Amino acid sequence: MREGRAPDELRPVTIETDYVEQADGSAMISFGRTRVLCTASVEEGVPRWLQGSRRGWLTAEYGMLPASTGTRAGREASAGKQRGRTVEIQRLIGRSVRAVYNLAALGERTIWLDCDVVQADGGTRTAAISGAWVALALAAKRRDLPLPASEVAAVSVGLAGGEILLDLEYEEDVAAQVDMNVVMTADGRLIEVQATAEGDPFERAQFDQLIELGAAGIARVVEEQRRATTA
Amino acid sequence: MREGRAPDELRPVTIETDYVEQADGSAMISFGRTRVLCTASVEEGVPRWLQGSRRGWLTAEYGMLPASTGTRAGREASAGKQRGRTVEIQRLIGRSVRAVYNLAALGERTIWLDCDVVQADGGTRTAAISGAWVALALAAKRRDLPLPASEVAAVSVGLAGGEILLDLEYEEDVAAQVDMNVVMTADGRLIEVQATAEGDPFERAQFDQLIELGAAGIARVVEEQRRATTA
Amino acid sequence: MREGRAPDELRPVTIETDYVEQADGSAMISFGRTRVLCTASVEEGVPRWLQGSRRGWLTAEYGMLPASTGTRAGREASAGKQRGRTVEIQRLIGRSVRAVYNLAALGERTIWLDCDVVQADGGTRTAAISGAWVALALAAKRRDLPLPASEVAAVSVGLAGGEILLDLEYEEDVAAQVDMNVVMTADGRLIEVQATAEGDPFERAQFDQLIELGAAGIARVVEEQRRATTA
Amino acid sequence: MREGRAPDELRPVTIETDYVEQADGSAMISFGRTRVLCTASVEEGVPRWLQGSRRGWLTAEYGMLPASTGTRAGREASAGKQRGRTVEIQRLIGRSVRAVYNLAALGERTIWLDCDVVQADGGTRTAAISGAWVALALAAKRRDLPLPASEVAAVSVGLAGGEILLDLEYEEDVAAQVDMNVVMTADGRLIEVQATAEGDPFERAQFDQLIELGAAGIARVVEEQRRATTA
Amino acid sequence: MREGRAPDELRPVTIETDYVEQADGSAMISFGRTRVLCTASVEEGVPRWLQGSRRGWLTAEYGMLPASTGTRAGREASAGKQRGRTVEIQRLIGRSVRAVYNLAALGERTIWLDCDVVQADGGTRTAAISGAWVALALAAKRRDLPLPASEVAAVSVGLAGGEILLDLEYEEDVAAQVDMNVVMTADGRLIEVQATAEGDPFERAQFDQLIELGAAGIARVVEEQRRATTA
Amino acid sequence: MREGRAPDELRPVTIETDYVEQADGSAMISFGRTRVLCTASVEEGVPRWLQGSRRGWLTAEYGMLPASTGTRAGREASAGKQRGRTVEIQRLIGRSVRAVYNLAALGERTIWLDCDVVQADGGTRTAAISGAWVALALAAKRRDLPLPASEVAAVSVGLAGGEILLDLEYEEDVAAQVDMNVVMTADGRLIEVQATAEGDPFERAQFDQLIELGAAGIARVVEEQRRATTA
Repeated sequence: MREGRAPDELRPVTIETDYVEQADGSAMISFGRTRVLCTASVEEGVPRWLQGSRRGWLTAEYGMLPASTGTRAGREASAGKQRGRTVEIQRLIGRSVRAVYNLAALGERTIWLDCDVVQADGGTRTAAISGAWVALALAAKRRDLPLPASEVAAVSVGLAGGEILLDLEYEEDVAAQVDMNVVMTADGRLIEVQATAEGDPFERAQFDQLIELGAAGIARVVEEQRRATTA
Repeated sequence: MREGRAPDELRPVTIETDYVEQADGSAMISFGRTRVLCTASVEEGVPRWLQGSRRGWLTAEYGMLPASTGTRAGREASAGKQRGRTVEIQRLIGRSVRAVYNLAALGERTIWLDCDVVQADGGTRTAAISGAWVALALAAKRRDLPLPASEVAAVSVGLAGGEILLDLEYEEDVAAQVDMNVVMTADGRLIEVQATAEGDPFERAQFDQLIELGAAGIARVVEEQRRATTA
Repeated sequence: MREGRAPDELRPVTIETDYVEQADGSAMISFGRTRVLCTASVEEGVPRWLQGSRRGWLTAEYGMLPASTGTRAGREASAGKQRGRTVEIQRLIGRSVRAVYNLAALGERTIWLDCDVVQADGGTRTAAISGAWVALALAAKRRDLPLPASEVAAVSVGLAGGEILLDLEYEEDVAAQVDMNVVMTADGRLIEVQATAEGDPFERAQFDQLIELGAAGIARVVEEQRRATTA
Repeated sequence: MREGRAPDELRPVTIETDYVEQADGSAMISFGRTRVLCTASVEEGVPRWLQGSRRGWLTAEYGMLPASTGTRAGREASAGKQRGRTVEIQRLIGRSVRAVYNLAALGERTIWLDCDVVQADGGTRTAAISGAWVALALAAKRRDLPLPASEVAAVSVGLAGGEILLDLEYEEDVAAQVDMNVVMTADGRLIEVQATAEGDPFERAQFDQLIELGAAGIARVVEEQRRATTA
Repeated sequence: MREGRAPDELRPVTIETDYVEQADGSAMISFGRTRVLCTASVEEGVPRWLQGSRRGWLTAEYGMLPASTGTRAGREASAGKQRGRTVEIQRLIGRSVRAVYNLAALGERTIWLDCDVVQADGGTRTAAISGAWVALALAAKRRDLPLPASEVAAVSVGLAGGEILLDLEYEEDVAAQVDMNVVMTADGRLIEVQATAEGDPFERAQFDQLIELGAAGIARVVEEQRRATTA
Repeated sequence: MREGRAPDELRPVTIETDYVEQADGSAMISFGRTRVLCTASVEEGVPRWLQGSRRGWLTAEYGMLPASTGTRAGREASAGKQRGRTVEIQRLIGRSVRAVYNLAALGERTIWLDCDVVQADGGTRTAAISGAWVALALAAKRRDLPLPASEVAAVSVGLAGGEILLDLEYEEDVAAQVDMNVVMTADGRLIEVQATAEGDPFERAQFDQLIELGAAGIARVVEEQRRATTA
């Protein structure tokens, strides 16, 4: 793991746009071996509780292809139930992107952001947020809808073996004492912070270091998002 | 709302222990009108993936009685499905309490923490964490199991109308621009931080103020937990 | 078990009203250690099959908190399915209370009666019926809806060890050869009788004795209901 | 309705045995137009909670073919859920037949009684109990298992338009103020009594008349059961 | 198996019409021991996606009674899920019959074809198609709806032990290397062909022989359908 | 549609192997815009009904990413149910590949073939079969398991506008009167044939032409499979 990568270094980030030509917007985003296919689909109409409000809705769904992890995980569709982790992640993606999107200006339309993990090696939820934003931006441009107010990107940071690390791979993630996901705008404002002690509780000072490192990583991801959407 | 309460003041916190005499441990915890019944049940055996490991397991479930909110919410059991929010909260409760509990010393037993909201007026998840810890401590004592390493308590903090507020009621919560839940040990170390921009993204400085205020509130809740478990 | 209680004696019955302040009506009812939280919630509108009929609807749901019995029972919401026993009981509660309630006079509204067992020591379904009636009466008064035509109360009776017993505790219930639930109005008319031979079939004469004893017990419960609702 | 039938007269009852040759025991039972196909299937093994107990188990399942009623009812298998009524009825059938069957003598085997309504015109649950008993008796004989201790039969009785009626057809059932199902052994002992006020509560005296009428009807059904099983 | 039946001989086919008097059309069809109860129910209205189209809809559902096979199969309604095989079969039945039915002339009505297997000894899906057509034809006549353009019948054919066989019984089916279902109109045009290599792949020549044999069998079934519907 | 392609011409077929490095075998297969990601995962152990048999098992699952079609289709995992079409297709894939795989030689292992449609433009099930075979062959080689006895490939053929067409795109598929899927081995033996009249029934002669055209197309796909697996 890490394979010579510095503690404050991201894995190679690539974003391949328009991977699904028929979708309104799509991006295959990779953080090293972690690869997530993100699409944005625009639908006329809104859920019942918004009908007549003249506001739109934006929501996300997340899934992992069964073979995306080293060991096959059961398909949720055939189990007839999404796992708790899936539900938690898709709610996070939706909240994160809604923070920069003007639903009132969207009108009574729904934007679906689908994030499907093709290969998982740590950081799938933060890759999904970063890729979903790209798919949204592309769809908004193509369909002539309001553009997002800013980029939104996310990275994971963690404390493992006493070291503060950026962008954890799966094996680092398993070993981490603290696991943190940070979601920010391009200008460094916070959208969501989730920090969890996997083992022992942690100190405020460590928390501050983690969040700094996260901010630096996010700035790098935003550069890639800009490159992908202004091409 | 607030009814004369200062921005940095908790609602009255009360903890009634042994509310369910037949449970191994139980506590009815109130933060003002928010009231959550927490129980701890000890079972011999562990889930399949831990069998033979000599380690125990501790997990939480959360529910809201249908009439606990002003407007009746459908019963999840009759819908045949837990809502995403429920799943997210019960995972949070379990993680929070596991951070101070020695599962290796527990042996192959499972502790279930059930948190059922009797009345909801904001802050049910943080009340649930705080109450679940009490139920656990009582059950551990009564059943002669390892005691938790420290108290664990949680509060909500938020930014509403430009003001930093401790322990938000439902109406404050709805109006908040930033909503944050903090879980800490008695000595002020962090277990979990979840901060969410409900509206616009927020600044690092605001984040720091929120976390300070949360720490102060948690210290107060820990006092109540000590009173309840040392009686 | 019984602990000095005579065969024809109820356990102490208490009814605490307005336990959930935000509900339209609520009552925590106890028969000894058996404790059931009953709430009534009034909703505008009726199920589809009654729309346009100008009639209202009244229905009940029943649940047991997982730790309410000595040994933790799985949560139905997380199993994704209500147990057969639950379904049977909630249908019984709804039928029992509808027998004294004028749905035509209610108009196109729905009243939900939720009965959640906090602690179970036998007789939860009869306690639930008795408590649900109180919650209904309180909600009707508060919301200025038609009042029920009469009190409705219920008790369990049984034949255990050759003896006719009123208001069986859990251990008596397990040992009973005949198990009977009686639901009556305040003036002693029958709403529902369910008698079941748990072991050998039983004689008509025994049946008659059981129903007499049930009637006597119900009269006592009605007194408590009146006290609770006229306070 | 009734078509000249006296108030205390059963509809023509017929029992066609071995309707499903491949089942261990089977009977197509008719009460007038109501027709229920009952089968008994013997399986080695018992549910987990009885393993090692040396006792057997007997359980029932009930269903209605979608076209069995005048208006098609949705198929439960495609809805993915049994209706509450179905659950209630199959539990009743199981309890009724277990009352005369020696599960200890059965050994670790399970007997499934399946009752599928081919055509419904009132009284399907009582027909199902009566037919299930026949299927059980035939299977016990054929597979050389313990025979039931006695016949078990059931009928419905009711109070409609001020009149006490035996064996209600669908339209009578809809109009009934009191609806009662009685399950008895051949020697007139009671196994289960369920009486429900569909409209106003009813008097003890009416209840007694209903149960008398039920007993008379059951004696007639037992004659048919004997004819069918001793052929 | 076969019991003297020639390889190109059908089992005795019988069709008993109006088995369920209350249904719009019904037929109990038998191919030897295989027996399927087919009903047609006409409903006003169409599924949402056809509303306003002035076209009707025709769909089928299939089920097996639990005791229909030698060994009891679990009830799909209580498992809460239809098996994959069930879903596949009911889609086949629907497609087959729709091929000869004018849905535009039906108007906004839905015809449900329910096929419930009472006893299974191979060929239940082809019997179901053949019987469903009869139920449909009877319902159309009785309710004065458009008649089907032609008979539709189906048979199974297969290659077992090197021999080409018509109308396989269960044990032949299990032993077959190739299993084929053919659905045709009365004038020998094809509606559906499904051929599956159960073991080794097969040759085009064998395929041609199978389809010829199927056509001959179908002609015989059509004769029975005509007899049943013109009576 | 067709865009200059001859009626008997395939769309460009490409197979990208090892698309998911962590899977035992994987292939992204394209037929024009139709793109399906196929993976093979080997697990120790077999389903319960094969335990102790010394035989292995091979099964397939199929899914469509929500945005794979032009209009977003709901995610089956969040609906809690696989659609009938999905179930039908995954059963077909499994049967097709099992026909050339020696499960006895596999030993008590399970091979999962997952086929997830990334973009759909007609022919997803035949692409899935062809790609699943590649993933299987790669996994077998890598994990040193028995190799498949032959290639298995599939194509769709159809009759649209009076013309016999190979490899239908979505819009051709919608317009087709006859829709047929053919699955064959490399030496032209049949594994599965499914032909369906979408509109009017069809003639035997047309059927024969369709199957010929399918055989020609399959030979082309097998060439691509060989190129991909011998690289």
